[in-house]
Amino acid sequence: MRNILVLGAGRSASTLINYLLKHSSQQQWYVTVADASLQLAQQKVASHSHATAIQIDVETEELDKYISKADIVISMLPAHMHAPVAVACLKHRKHLVTASYVSQQIAALHNDANDAGITFMNECGLDPGIDHMSAMKIIDKLHADGCTIKSFKSYCGGLVAPQSNNNPWGYKFTWNPRNVILAGQSTARYIENNSYKYIPYNRLFTQTESIDIPDFGLFDGYANRDSLSYRNVYGLHNIPTLLRGTLRYEGYCKAWDVFVRLGLTDDSFKIENASNLSYAKWLSSFLPKHTTNMRQAVADFYGIDVNDKVMDAVWFTGIASDDLIGLDNASPAQILQHKLEQCWQLQPNDKDLIVMVHLFDYEDANKKKQQLKSWLTVIGDDAAYTAMANTVGLPLAIVTKLILNGQIKDTGVLLPVKADVYNPILNELETLGVVFNESHI
Amino acid sequence: MRNILVLGAGRSASTLINYLLKHSSQQQWYVTVADASLQLAQQKVASHSHATAIQIDVETEELDKYISKADIVISMLPAHMHAPVAVACLKHRKHLVTASYVSQQIAALHNDANDAGITFMNECGLDPGIDHMSAMKIIDKLHADGCTIKSFKSYCGGLVAPQSNNNPWGYKFTWNPRNVILAGQSTARYIENNSYKYIPYNRLFTQTESIDIPDFGLFDGYANRDSLSYRNVYGLHNIPTLLRGTLRYEGYCKAWDVFVRLGLTDDSFKIENASNLSYAKWLSSFLPKHTTNMRQAVADFYGIDVNDKVMDAVWFTGIASDDLIGLDNASPAQILQHKLEQCWQLQPNDKDLIVMVHLFDYEDANKKKQQLKSWLTVIGDDAAYTAMANTVGLPLAIVTKLILNGQIKDTGVLLPVKADVYNPILNELETLGVVFNESHI
Repeated sequence: MRNILVLGAGRSASTLINYLLKHSSQQQWYVTVADASLQLAQQKVASHSHATAIQIDVETEELDKYISKADIVISMLPAHMHAPVAVACLKHRKHLVTASYVSQQIAALHNDANDAGITFMNECGLDPGIDHMSAMKIIDKLHADGCTIKSFKSYCGGLVAPQSNNNPWGYKFTWNPRNVILAGQSTARYIENNSYKYIPYNRLFTQTESIDIPDFGLFDGYANRDSLSYRNVYGLHNIPTLLRGTLRYEGYCKAWDVFVRLGLTDDSFKIENASNLSYAKWLSSFLPKHTTNMRQAVADFYGIDVNDKVMDAVWFTGIASDDLIGLDNASPAQILQHKLEQCWQLQPNDKDLIVMVHLFDYEDANKKKQQLKSWLTVIGDDAAYTAMANTVGLPLAIVTKLILNGQIKDTGVLLPVKADVYNPILNELETLGVVFNESHI
Repeated sequence: MRNILVLGAGRSASTLINYLLKHSSQQQWYVTVADASLQLAQQKVASHSHATAIQIDVETEELDKYISKADIVISMLPAHMHAPVAVACLKHRKHLVTASYVSQQIAALHNDANDAGITFMNECGLDPGIDHMSAMKIIDKLHADGCTIKSFKSYCGGLVAPQSNNNPWGYKFTWNPRNVILAGQSTARYIENNSYKYIPYNRLFTQTESIDIPDFGLFDGYANRDSLSYRNVYGLHNIPTLLRGTLRYEGYCKAWDVFVRLGLTDDSFKIENASNLSYAKWLSSFLPKHTTNMRQAVADFYGIDVNDKVMDAVWFTGIASDDLIGLDNASPAQILQHKLEQCWQLQPNDKDLIVMVHLFDYEDANKKKQQLKSWLTVIGDDAAYTAMANTVGLPLAIVTKLILNGQIKDTGVLLPVKADVYNPILNELETLGVVFNESHI
């Protein structure tokens, strides 16, 4: 029996734990699911004979004890909590798998992990994760074919499936709402035609690219914080154009920009009297002119017609309602989040949608210009087994299997960017319905 | 003899030290001027018989030694360095005077200073300083007359005098350039007609108020970071409208907004290749579209005519020049500052201008609506004895005299908001040419 310790049993761990339990007999795995909430861990494990649920406080010595008994640890904890887990894994020489970006603290453990002969596989979920693997598969193929890559743009979005899309934003929360509210507040940086490009927050949601996904229609892509570092990650050191971004249904970005311009996404100060304030009164604090017709005032502020569909989206949120906010000492961003959680909640039968797309411009070996579009769409099962949980959890589970079965030889702090990692994962993902499409122009 | 220790002999200390030396015989003062640069301290002291210049490293035990020998300390150090000075003053029971905002660290010393019978007088320069004193004099008078204050707006600006105003911005640096570049990056908060108002950075420089200063013309006022806290400072707890702001010559704010919208004032990331980059190339990184006609591109980006005077101001800075930036690993804000320091430098014969204005709406004892405008304009002597140095240094010097002569009875951490402090200071300032004008409507 090989012992797998899963830290964190939240929504995003559902599919991961299901996969581990399903393969536990055949693979001779014993799965320990640990969470701060014993109930949550027990829900995920049920009465499975190859698994147990435990309550854990990761800031105590328990963490060390459970890691010492495991063969591999999968951390689904918030990213800032990975460092103590990694240190304990190093101490006990246990492998570690996460879906989070490599922090400086984790990166600093590379040589020690390498010396200890253990693998710390990070960024192995959806984004980061499947994005790396699917991109590197194409990049390695193009390079092997003697092609020169001129431009690589990659977008991903966690959205709501068309059949559950019943609001003017095409959006419901399937992931950490706070990250959605604060998205883009760091200047976006990318490279285009060999020139660095910077987009400050004040115009990030207006400077979007329109992306067509066959069978799904048009999406807006806005640039992510830092695309420049991916030149190293993907070995595309001299690529003229490289951009990574986030996808939203068409129209979302323009409506979101109204919130940005108003100042509603501001997380830098607390509003004193928020608990006894109505949303309407709160909104009026951001409008330059006093007015009784709030919808007209917002439309005038943004310079659009009061019946513009952007206004329909803004008004759908109830942002000007007379309801009391009921939050003490909250920032504008926290108040906006509180309101949106009421209207962007994924209902039990709602299905979510993951869209990922890679756009390559390259010269083939004959110096002929080519374009390649590779895209993935995944629709979730329901509000529990979301496309988000599936696409984050399955690569984590598969890479765990590969490591335990000795199929990944490299040790140290790694990303899934090499063929011996991405090929078996992408191949198995295909059998599980996570399939990329390709079109060439 | 009473010993005065002046910490810091930079540009803003010139007038302060001059005043102290001039009155040293009559007042029986001995003045020690300490600076990290002995030369700078010596320049200020020259060969005056009642003064000495010393070199000091304030992070060593020397600080404690010199404070122990003084009767009062005037700290012209950067604000974050006041705390250790205050702690040493407390230890040796010495009075302390600064022109800086009271930090939480300083505020926490109130009871100890009070128990020790010493006075820590802060915010006693221009802004903060003369603004408090002149406002409180009017507020106390209006309250004594049975008036109800409905609105108080107060603006101040450190600018260039009309006779030295030879650039399209009406601006040259007379104070810390970095603060000018980063101005407004925290959300402005004020109260208007009993409603809280918030202005995010993205529209701060477009939401200005036009202010007429007799004999000087129109200025633009933009809101400062936090006006709300002044309700307590001025005892105006239930005032419907309270706003504090910064003045610029008309046109400055609209041109500055071009920099904000482009992203040039961003201090949140470093540009990798700044040393070998031209300003033109740097600027193009912030423009959505590639173009060879940069001036047209900036005008199109901002939606104005290429010959608009806003474009004249923007272009005057040389922001699109082919010169190399020559700074390593600098933020956009640092690069912009570097460029502006080249074209906004106060020349030796330039005179600067301080403008301060208080606008009151109130109901008099007969419930009649009244308006009162009180304004101050001060023109500097030259680039050394600036209006800025005069208006910061004189109130500091005068309050030092008042404390040494026992005319300020209160102890603890204080602001100059009580009549026994502001009256003698404002009266003496009038004899020195710092005179407020008033008009009633």
